[in-house]
Amino acid sequence: MSKTLGIIGGMGPLATVKLFEMIVLMTKANADQEHIHILIDNNTLIPDRTNYILNEIGEDPRIQLTKSAQALEKMGADYLIMPCNTAHNFYEGIIENINIPFINMIDETAKYIKDNNNDTVKIGLLATEGTIKAKVYDKVFNKYGIEVLKPSKENQNYVTELIYNIKEDIPQESLDGFYMAMDDLRNQGVDIFVAGCTEISVAIDLYKLEGNIIDAMRILALSAIKFAGKESKIE
Amino acid sequence: MSKTLGIIGGMGPLATVKLFEMIVLMTKANADQEHIHILIDNNTLIPDRTNYILNEIGEDPRIQLTKSAQALEKMGADYLIMPCNTAHNFYEGIIENINIPFINMIDETAKYIKDNNNDTVKIGLLATEGTIKAKVYDKVFNKYGIEVLKPSKENQNYVTELIYNIKEDIPQESLDGFYMAMDDLRNQGVDIFVAGCTEISVAIDLYKLEGNIIDAMRILALSAIKFAGKESKIE
Repeated sequence: MSKTLGIIGGMGPLATVKLFEMIVLMTKANADQEHIHILIDNNTLIPDRTNYILNEIGEDPRIQLTKSAQALEKMGADYLIMPCNTAHNFYEGIIENINIPFINMIDETAKYIKDNNNDTVKIGLLATEGTIKAKVYDKVFNKYGIEVLKPSKENQNYVTELIYNIKEDIPQESLDGFYMAMDDLRNQGVDIFVAGCTEISVAIDLYKLEGNIIDAMRILALSAIKFAGKESKIE
Repeated sequence: MSKTLGIIGGMGPLATVKLFEMIVLMTKANADQEHIHILIDNNTLIPDRTNYILNEIGEDPRIQLTKSAQALEKMGADYLIMPCNTAHNFYEGIIENINIPFINMIDETAKYIKDNNNDTVKIGLLATEGTIKAKVYDKVFNKYGIEVLKPSKENQNYVTELIYNIKEDIPQESLDGFYMAMDDLRNQGVDIFVAGCTEISVAIDLYKLEGNIIDAMRILALSAIKFAGKESKIE
């Protein structure tokens, strides 16, 4: 019997839907019963992570993140994942309160990039200001010898706009600014980008984003399928 | 604060994804925190419902359905829904073991049709053989004065094929047979169809199914949003 997966969701809800869909579509299964048993807490009580990191206002996200993690463990989850890059800033604060493995999306993405590139790597990070300020990627990627570059403050605003438009379900009128941010990173010597925000993961499909973008959420989905003891259709 | 929704899922997993997506996309919300707190048990231990109803073999689905319902209640769900029409055959067996409301998808669909049609109505049912044999729709719809018609045995096979292809992720090569089943129902005097299987709900989008098809799962999503105390974007 395969392991039961617990997903700490709600950050945002559409990204949680997308991760769930990825896992279902990528699992090799010929019947309902061959799929992974998945428990999801789409916990919309979790406050905005970026707002807390940048401005230190509002409730500490660790409180609700830990509640979700413990509730999923209690309900029978054998391991956890969390489709929110910014929330990984609070990863250590969650694991000390649970007794099951918690697959780290940032770590899985670093391993994937390291395994698929021989030389020293520079990546361009497409993420929230919270993820950038808290150095969520730098802390992990630097250990693997991967350099993390960010767009200028002005270009970052276009990335932030795309992310919050997805969260608020506002159609994106133009991708020009977002592509300017990617060009900015190319000028810094980057040819690999990381979708380091699950709303960017949603945008990849929604807006058919172009460029060599590695989707951290997709890597997490594949790791979750493997950890459950299942095979995936796509490598 | 809005109510917490519990979803008994896994029947099948892709239909569960679709219902979750419908709820998120149709909820009026301007931030992650304005969405509905949703708990999902994508319980793939629930055995095939149709197989149990038709052949009376295997474990009684009530056992796992009740386990999921109780686990969701314990985790904090204020009310439940279940995106599987066939499983509604076991609805009574579940509610006697829980203490929270459980919105009945078949009942919501009957009310919707009654509210939107003045005269006596005949509907054509597109569902599993399990739903048909167990008279899941007839029992409820007849109370509302709605007559439920089914395709001939031969044409029903095409409907069944489409449903299980979705469950097994096999691309549907032709919709000819499925449309023959719909024509069969039209010849019986039907001009309203009910997608009475959540895999048909998935197929509506996936294959852009044509015809006047009322999607029971979409009606359930709208009822769930309303019950949570939220507004929906689409009426």
